[in-house]
Amino acid sequence: MPHPNEAFLPGLFEFLRIPSISTLPEHQPDIRRAAEFVLAELTAAGLSARIIEGEGHPLVYGEWLGAPGKPTLLLYGHYDVQPVDPVDEWISPPFEPTVRNDNVYCRGAVDDKGQTYILLKAVAVTMQRHGRLPVNVRVLIEGEEECGGGHISRYVPAHAAELKADAALICDTEMFAPELPTICTGLRGIVYGEIHVTGARTDLHSGIYGGAAPNPLQAMAEIICAIKDRDGRIQIPGFYDPVAPPSEAERAAWARLPFDEAQYAQHELGAPELVGEPGIPVLERLWARPTFEVHGIRGGFTGEGAKTVIPARAVAKVSCRTVKNQVLETVERQLAEAVKAACPRGVTAEYRHIHSGDGALVDTRHPCVQAAARALTECFGQETVYVRGGGSIPIVAMFEKHLGIPSVMMGFGLPDDNLHAPNEKFHLPNFYRGIDAVIRYFEMLGE
Amino acid sequence: MPHPNEAFLPGLFEFLRIPSISTLPEHQPDIRRAAEFVLAELTAAGLSARIIEGEGHPLVYGEWLGAPGKPTLLLYGHYDVQPVDPVDEWISPPFEPTVRNDNVYCRGAVDDKGQTYILLKAVAVTMQRHGRLPVNVRVLIEGEEECGGGHISRYVPAHAAELKADAALICDTEMFAPELPTICTGLRGIVYGEIHVTGARTDLHSGIYGGAAPNPLQAMAEIICAIKDRDGRIQIPGFYDPVAPPSEAERAAWARLPFDEAQYAQHELGAPELVGEPGIPVLERLWARPTFEVHGIRGGFTGEGAKTVIPARAVAKVSCRTVKNQVLETVERQLAEAVKAACPRGVTAEYRHIHSGDGALVDTRHPCVQAAARALTECFGQETVYVRGGGSIPIVAMFEKHLGIPSVMMGFGLPDDNLHAPNEKFHLPNFYRGIDAVIRYFEMLGE
Repeated sequence: MPHPNEAFLPGLFEFLRIPSISTLPEHQPDIRRAAEFVLAELTAAGLSARIIEGEGHPLVYGEWLGAPGKPTLLLYGHYDVQPVDPVDEWISPPFEPTVRNDNVYCRGAVDDKGQTYILLKAVAVTMQRHGRLPVNVRVLIEGEEECGGGHISRYVPAHAAELKADAALICDTEMFAPELPTICTGLRGIVYGEIHVTGARTDLHSGIYGGAAPNPLQAMAEIICAIKDRDGRIQIPGFYDPVAPPSEAERAAWARLPFDEAQYAQHELGAPELVGEPGIPVLERLWARPTFEVHGIRGGFTGEGAKTVIPARAVAKVSCRTVKNQVLETVERQLAEAVKAACPRGVTAEYRHIHSGDGALVDTRHPCVQAAARALTECFGQETVYVRGGGSIPIVAMFEKHLGIPSVMMGFGLPDDNLHAPNEKFHLPNFYRGIDAVIRYFEMLGE
Repeated sequence: MPHPNEAFLPGLFEFLRIPSISTLPEHQPDIRRAAEFVLAELTAAGLSARIIEGEGHPLVYGEWLGAPGKPTLLLYGHYDVQPVDPVDEWISPPFEPTVRNDNVYCRGAVDDKGQTYILLKAVAVTMQRHGRLPVNVRVLIEGEEECGGGHISRYVPAHAAELKADAALICDTEMFAPELPTICTGLRGIVYGEIHVTGARTDLHSGIYGGAAPNPLQAMAEIICAIKDRDGRIQIPGFYDPVAPPSEAERAAWARLPFDEAQYAQHELGAPELVGEPGIPVLERLWARPTFEVHGIRGGFTGEGAKTVIPARAVAKVSCRTVKNQVLETVERQLAEAVKAACPRGVTAEYRHIHSGDGALVDTRHPCVQAAARALTECFGQETVYVRGGGSIPIVAMFEKHLGIPSVMMGFGLPDDNLHAPNEKFHLPNFYRGIDAVIRYFEMLGE
């Protein structure tokens, strides 16, 4: 029997077809179209909605405040998506929603258009059924989540009073396992930047100069290895000092989660083996330990064939994920100092900061979290589990800091959804049940 | 007083104006024109000459064998040139020969049209003066030196008997310093390939997977650092074992060369400091020690902004320069084994070979070398020095292997001639004296 929420697939696909890649300037018109799509959905649902212009991509805001005395939820999502390269690894075109095995494949399917659409439809369905909502809602959808854009981060502090709410509801995370309703209670922060290494004045011929000329790529390798050792331990002095471990209760709960390390390595990652700090359980490494990762290295010659160049410069994109009690500014400084300290002779090296974002921890005893857990348990027929996420959703920290509210992270993605990668997908049964769960959450919170 | 060889400038400029870039297919007609220019010069000089067609750009061959009992020289040069990008860094147009401060600026000025033209004019002048040459000459000029083309490398082994000579004369190297006549007596070999590292099945999000997923870029850094240490010593077991040091006489001669390490670092390289194996003099590091260099690293995200990807794969272009007694096949195997041995957990790594080329050492006691040194000393008024080159000129090894002859590398370039770079130049006094020196060399060899 088809799920009644299948009726929402055409709308979802229309949303997904808009290639709203926020980081590429040529997609500016698509960004605008995606914002207008969201606006139209909110208006059609009966909300008072508008586009908020400003420096950066537009925000879309909507509100329905007709339930005085009831809690107010701030619904957050983002209509922008990641780039699609390497595009030749996509099985179906990245912006043509294609259903295979109960999954819809498309860039943005789960991150975050599909999950944003869950929020929009939950509001629309409830309004349509009852002509009202059991709670007050504000909706704030942004278009720069994937490019670290600043529009929302300037808007929220400047309009804190207008965004007053009891909690935020964010559908931008994932379930721990298929069928296992999940609330995410913690996120890591991020410090992202570039390591710049400079050697000679110009690129040099490796025959004429090899043996005396400094090679910035070799130096970069040395700096990277000095920052993180072969075992995955970060070697920056004092880096781990402030790190707060998870509570014993949390550790015990994580140990009970259905997690098989070999299965995770082979099936989810497709890697020969996991890496990381020895002696620390995988989930704790992912959720409660900081990281250092290299995202790309530029410099020299990487085309077809052979060019014997010693490059004059090399640049590495790097980031640290941070956890509770780490201060972003301190990590930035530690990275900058570590790069300087690790710099070998013959070159100069420096860390150039690009952006940072705070992590967050949510108290599971908050009534808005408790109601969400009950709604999920009811809709999925299994006890809701609390996990953390290893990624960063800067908005969560922002809501906490400027609005003083926790975020209820009710995610419907699955671990194999290929976020930020080719063949991103969304499991359609989760899309259907997600809408039901959010509707039920409104009801329980309004009781 | 103008030098009498100034008369040859118009001909040189005509040759230089042909944009015979061998690696760009759109310059095919220019390649043909350059070959025909050389043919016309040889014919006009009185040689029996022809164009040799075959797969790849044409060879030009000429001969004059009218001195029975006298030595035979095989004159080699190339009429093709490097591309000109970045074109906006050229002060004058790259294919418009422009004289500034006694230098002619043009792509190919010194590498190698200008030096090839020295050979052509030396033959023509001698023929014109005496109606004959004091030695026998064969001339073989190719058009694929700058693009690794294979025409000459198939032709020479297949026509070894027709190319019979006592030595080759190659003007494609440089003088150690202005005014210092120089013969190059050694070249390094090369082993070039790629290191491929594979981690997870697809690119992964560094937030969700960072702390457990293997990062091929981190692994690549570890492999690179395992192969060459911070001091510049290659750590591959047995790598240095066969390396033959220069003779004590060579070391002593190199130590007498006018070389200032700080000057070289600051002015020629523009680098803060030189690197390389401790305790070994710079010139020995450049000429008589093998190297390992990284030319480029591909994988992950290197565009503008921030993308938090853990790449599934990384590829590094690498090469080793090899020296006397190192066997190329052994070095290939050592590289492959070193990559395997250095591979950290969580990833697989392999070395994929692209190409190799032999080095060469020329015995300075050979009469053809001795005569060249005397001719240079006479024309430049200074004792000729013997140096080596750190790069690879594959034709030298090919002549040695297939024809059994040494190459006399009598170069007239200068260290600041900007080979393969914008504003390539040729110092005109070296062009003039080069013609005189080759004429004198013919005479001395014929005595």
